[in-house]
Amino acid sequence: MATINRNYDKLGGGYLFSEITRRTKAFQEKHPSIMLLRLGIGNTTQSLTPTVIKGLQSGVEKLADAKTYTGYGDERGDIRLRFAFANWYKERGINLTTSEIFISDGAKPDTANIQSIFGQNCVVAVSDPAYPVYVDTAIIGGRKIVYMPCIKDNGFIPSLPKGKVDIIYICSPNNPTGAVVTKKQLQAFVDYAIKYKAVIVFDAAYSEYITDKNLPKSIYEIPGAKKCAIEISSFSKWAGFTGVRLGWTVVPIDLVVEGSEKGKVNSLWNRRQITMFNGASNIAQEGGLAVLSEKGQKESKELISYYMKNAAIIKKGFSKIGLQVFGGENAPYIWLKTPQKMSSWDFFDKLLNEAHVVGTPGVGFGPQGEGYFRLSAFGNREQIEKAIKSIQENLKL
Amino acid sequence: MATINRNYDKLGGGYLFSEITRRTKAFQEKHPSIMLLRLGIGNTTQSLTPTVIKGLQSGVEKLADAKTYTGYGDERGDIRLRFAFANWYKERGINLTTSEIFISDGAKPDTANIQSIFGQNCVVAVSDPAYPVYVDTAIIGGRKIVYMPCIKDNGFIPSLPKGKVDIIYICSPNNPTGAVVTKKQLQAFVDYAIKYKAVIVFDAAYSEYITDKNLPKSIYEIPGAKKCAIEISSFSKWAGFTGVRLGWTVVPIDLVVEGSEKGKVNSLWNRRQITMFNGASNIAQEGGLAVLSEKGQKESKELISYYMKNAAIIKKGFSKIGLQVFGGENAPYIWLKTPQKMSSWDFFDKLLNEAHVVGTPGVGFGPQGEGYFRLSAFGNREQIEKAIKSIQENLKL
Repeated sequence: MATINRNYDKLGGGYLFSEITRRTKAFQEKHPSIMLLRLGIGNTTQSLTPTVIKGLQSGVEKLADAKTYTGYGDERGDIRLRFAFANWYKERGINLTTSEIFISDGAKPDTANIQSIFGQNCVVAVSDPAYPVYVDTAIIGGRKIVYMPCIKDNGFIPSLPKGKVDIIYICSPNNPTGAVVTKKQLQAFVDYAIKYKAVIVFDAAYSEYITDKNLPKSIYEIPGAKKCAIEISSFSKWAGFTGVRLGWTVVPIDLVVEGSEKGKVNSLWNRRQITMFNGASNIAQEGGLAVLSEKGQKESKELISYYMKNAAIIKKGFSKIGLQVFGGENAPYIWLKTPQKMSSWDFFDKLLNEAHVVGTPGVGFGPQGEGYFRLSAFGNREQIEKAIKSIQENLKL
Repeated sequence: MATINRNYDKLGGGYLFSEITRRTKAFQEKHPSIMLLRLGIGNTTQSLTPTVIKGLQSGVEKLADAKTYTGYGDERGDIRLRFAFANWYKERGINLTTSEIFISDGAKPDTANIQSIFGQNCVVAVSDPAYPVYVDTAIIGGRKIVYMPCIKDNGFIPSLPKGKVDIIYICSPNNPTGAVVTKKQLQAFVDYAIKYKAVIVFDAAYSEYITDKNLPKSIYEIPGAKKCAIEISSFSKWAGFTGVRLGWTVVPIDLVVEGSEKGKVNSLWNRRQITMFNGASNIAQEGGLAVLSEKGQKESKELISYYMKNAAIIKKGFSKIGLQVFGGENAPYIWLKTPQKMSSWDFFDKLLNEAHVVGTPGVGFGPQGEGYFRLSAFGNREQIEKAIKSIQENLKL
């Protein structure tokens, strides 16, 4: 008699973004003539840049001819792309070998699946609020969770966990708060991890939004990080690959955990991937190579600037109507304090009903997100300007 | 103190295909002037068909313009593609709704990840020999395994498990043996599953190679299967998507397990996917739509015919030198009995050293594969003809 994994019953009511979709659809069915303005889900909206399109096209063309056709590739990723990453990190003063870099189909699957190579008794520390995947995956896997509150008083940067934990998720620039960890703050986590033989899973999906040179883009800028940190990142947000699906994960050879020598964790992730993953799409990987080219990187910077200007408009717009806003600098998310102590979902409904704007309730990211609201800079300019105008004209505060 | 998942220590020495790569590379380094002929890993070699290339190109083009650009889609897959599948199944007399069909990045991840929605105490039954992913995933997840021997005496079709098991993997047409289950044989498994509330995971990745109308392509051709079976399939082998990455999984609403009502298993897989997967590449999905078009299907049939002619050549070639061969009809794999009771790996080395041909040792698929050898029809014709010629001239029997 097959049974189900009962841990699923312990999950919250629904994946946050699905619930937003549900409420939004319900509104649209009721008011089919109203055009909704989206400041919600962190979905990119701008076209891929010309160099990337060329890369993808050449990826498709190669498949049209048996001479250049490729089927299964290296499950860890095309060696050319892993070399390009090694160089990319090197330019930032970080030395990694190609065997430490794994190409994935995006940061989400890897931030989720990485837990499975660790012992089931490992305690997982996550920020509160946080990207829901960390928590949900820990619940599904039956792992104990410790929350690190990220509140206004600590600038939305988690304090070190109280007591011993084993796996620590840090996302910087942060989703949802837009807070960015400093080198000093990150050093404290690295020191903690080394002391307690914990592993940091550093979600760097938004790192390319950092323009302040003093802020760390990669955890490997921090001395000692290679001994304790896995870095997971993605092409989604800085190259528009949310639909194309491509990311990467770094598992350093030097990373050690309790009872395991150097290289062991790297080899486990390798074994996990060659067993349960069949590589990212070869077409997407050609696109990734194009992103990492000199021209591609230049174009990506323009794309990032576009979204960051959006962030500035949103931040200014909400400030102007008297709301408290955080983030939105070196990060594509704006974290808003709801007015009049409203709950996150009440503010969601208010924004939807009065201004026809869709945002993301902060409480969907954790209890400490209650009374907050996430706005995303990934919309198109015209929509964002309309949304801000609508808020300023229609929101009854 | 983080620990590792010690179940990894219980895995075999290495993923089969990695070991083949290792031995092959070692040979090539020793004999750099020798061109190896590959009859081994089931990797496709022929270019994508024109209609599919057009579909993929249009997928890329859409991303070049913000008006047609798409980012994150439905994690379960583009609704147009799920509709196309519902129609595709309908033409075969099978009624499925779009909410029962999940688009994936290939059959491998889904055959692996599907276990995680079931209870950890579920006993997993797998054929011996079998595609290594089923077994390795069960070991990594700490699940008990029961083997169903597939030997010459039972025509390489598993007999019903002795005693009660909870999750049963059936792959037909089979990898590695090339055996195809009949409707009657499959009905016996469905009856068993319903009786014991077990779940069948039906790996149909090679179903399009079936030309005999009496053999089932989908498990849902069998009465009762919707109550007990998940079907997992892929575009890899019949449309050349091994590198593009696209597949699908059917979890019927009617499927029930112990303690769970209708729809529960479907909703768990949905939750797993929206939490830990971010959808297949939008470009690949445009390619998938093209495969399912009338023209695309016609072209795929030609591709299949090409590979099946390869299978016939391999089968005939090995028969001619006096070896016993199985499979290769309605299936792209040929299952060979090694001569003179040689072990699978000894025959691998012999074939490599004497004929410069790379095949796949049967023992890599399970203990009952010892003394057998898998040959794949996915090479190009010229290589296969050369390989057969080389075997006939150089293999010392």
